Amino acid sequence: MKPLSSQAVQEDPAALIRDQVVPHVRAVSPYVPGDQPSGGGWVKLNTNELPYPCSPRVGPAIAAEVVRLPKYPDPASRPLRAAIARHHAVGADQVIVGNGSDDILNLLVRVFSPEGHGTWMTFPGYSLYPTLVAIRGSRIHQVPFAEDMRLPIEALVSADPALLFLTTPNAPTGVGFPNEEIRALLEGTRGIVVADEAYADFANENAIALLAECPRLVITRTFSKSFGLAGLRVGYALAHPEVIGYLDRVRDSYNVNRLSQAGALVALEDTAYYADVVARVKSTRDRFAHSLRERGWFTYPSATNFVFTRPATPAGAMGAGVARSLFEHLRNDRILVRYFPSHPFTEAFLRISIGTDEDMAVVENSIQKWIPPAE
Amino acid sequence: MKPLSSQAVQEDPAALIRDQVVPHVRAVSPYVPGDQPSGGGWVKLNTNELPYPCSPRVGPAIAAEVVRLPKYPDPASRPLRAAIARHHAVGADQVIVGNGSDDILNLLVRVFSPEGHGTWMTFPGYSLYPTLVAIRGSRIHQVPFAEDMRLPIEALVSADPALLFLTTPNAPTGVGFPNEEIRALLEGTRGIVVADEAYADFANENAIALLAECPRLVITRTFSKSFGLAGLRVGYALAHPEVIGYLDRVRDSYNVNRLSQAGALVALEDTAYYADVVARVKSTRDRFAHSLRERGWFTYPSATNFVFTRPATPAGAMGAGVARSLFEHLRNDRILVRYFPSHPFTEAFLRISIGTDEDMAVVENSIQKWIPPAE
Repeated sequence: MKPLSSQAVQEDPAALIRDQVVPHVRAVSPYVPGDQPSGGGWVKLNTNELPYPCSPRVGPAIAAEVVRLPKYPDPASRPLRAAIARHHAVGADQVIVGNGSDDILNLLVRVFSPEGHGTWMTFPGYSLYPTLVAIRGSRIHQVPFAEDMRLPIEALVSADPALLFLTTPNAPTGVGFPNEEIRALLEGTRGIVVADEAYADFANENAIALLAECPRLVITRTFSKSFGLAGLRVGYALAHPEVIGYLDRVRDSYNVNRLSQAGALVALEDTAYYADVVARVKSTRDRFAHSLRERGWFTYPSATNFVFTRPATPAGAMGAGVARSLFEHLRNDRILVRYFPSHPFTEAFLRISIGTDEDMAVVENSIQKWIPPAE
Repeated sequence: MKPLSSQAVQEDPAALIRDQVVPHVRAVSPYVPGDQPSGGGWVKLNTNELPYPCSPRVGPAIAAEVVRLPKYPDPASRPLRAAIARHHAVGADQVIVGNGSDDILNLLVRVFSPEGHGTWMTFPGYSLYPTLVAIRGSRIHQVPFAEDMRLPIEALVSADPALLFLTTPNAPTGVGFPNEEIRALLEGTRGIVVADEAYADFANENAIALLAECPRLVITRTFSKSFGLAGLRVGYALAHPEVIGYLDRVRDSYNVNRLSQAGALVALEDTAYYADVVARVKSTRDRFAHSLRERGWFTYPSATNFVFTRPATPAGAMGAGVARSLFEHLRNDRILVRYFPSHPFTEAFLRISIGTDEDMAVVENSIQKWIPPAE
């Protein structure tokens, strides 16, 4: 074949393609997930994964499904929706399952984020929301938390959001919000309120009871944290059936594969196993947070499987330089944690996922050997 | 808790939610996938799945990955992208992997479908495109095929599409298009041309050679058909690195789970196994199509794993009534095929996926027993 006598030959192909891109997509800055180091030997405490295996029921359930891989999965994940509905004592028509809760968050933006303005989040919060809103071509606005991390109800009510994302318990601080405050928020607002409860299994309270009171409340959950299935990509939302109907309308028709549906289903039913591992994470978390406070490091009370702590030098110096110094020291010891230098609220802190007691002992030993920057 | 004194109590919750939905989403009519019958005993020839097991390497590869499920997958599916690049002799930066090729098609719409008009497809084609475009809030226009199913190059060139979807080989007719025609199409157009090659492994030609000639060409592929992995949800696109970069910008950061990445990788490398099963499907297809033509039923030449045939009565009557009669007769015999009554082009035809020789014998025996509608 002789080459196409096309633009490709004369023009710059990259420019030619860029000209075809939807303008608002051209401006999107992609979400940056935490590092997934390929080499071994890391203590990986940067993406809030479970440090224990998933339920022993998952492997056999997945193996049994392999023979059916030539056939498409159930488009609506019906058996899994039914199991989730039973688990939370809601109707099956109040559940949608996604390819991770990121899939659900994306659907919520596509259905409820209005053209232009009207979409809001509390800051800090899950940094994926702004990316999803930018891809949709609308605008997100942030209501900042004060350092006390109390829910800024008045500011949120006066913002009058059409769509609001609230990470509860919060990331990266780990702080949980009492239902009374979320109820007050629902009382004062008129739009869709998304309670992103990715970490709720590590908290003492969740907003599910409020679903029956307010049809504008959407609760998102994930199997990536408390169920130890981050690699399986399963999340879900609980909401009014009318909300579920619209989300179903815009989702991929086969968004959750056979193995994910089968694995998540048996995991959800293994309540005894997860009650045990979640309890272990919580006690490790509380011991670790206590030891950080013993050092005099301010550490937010955590209702999650991570802690957000502000390292300090023996002389009491704190700030971005100190946090970065510890972040790099830990990484040199092959301990991976998360550092968010891009904002004054977070630049003096590190977010450390809760691993096993052994993992946290490794972290504490490494901190002992840390030489803080000179004053 | 006393109930929220909220709108929920006074107003109609469904109406309250509907008011929050983005207007163009409110108008979306969802894509309807083929039936996935839950009961057994069906000869399922309605969604073009492979009638043979997937590669025997897939099960062990998936089983070996289960222990790593607590950890997030590789966000970019890098090992799988590299294997796909080797498989097609293109650069790794020319590959993106999706949660099924539906995921990729959705990304293409989000990146390249312009506001308002400019998006086109040939009709008939994969009926998901209009749904994806409607969800994005833009418009899709169709260039119809004539009955001869020749690529309508002149009409497509004068349409001057910014984004064009071409199902090649075509669904539901099964007709393949020679590269010379696709090259002529690329010569005459200026926008992004998506060659949806879901069925290309069953064809004698594909457009991959044209990638080096035209940076506006995007080829999508799937593991759902020739690889017998519809239940695993893996698809990919081959394109210019600049196109891949924009698609990566809008995709879910963990869009393909660990098990799907691991299973697809070993399947792709089992070339001997798939050369054999694909050859079997093609010979079964050709025998079955021949027998339909022996009955005097017009049947398009198929470059896929299905046939599109127009049933006729012994007296030679054809049309929607005849096609529907056979469709219902087959379903009563627990044989599931696809019928598209909604358009004059397709209403007189049935689309029958190619199963095993035994499956097709069951179909032929059932057709023998069919009593066509009286004239």
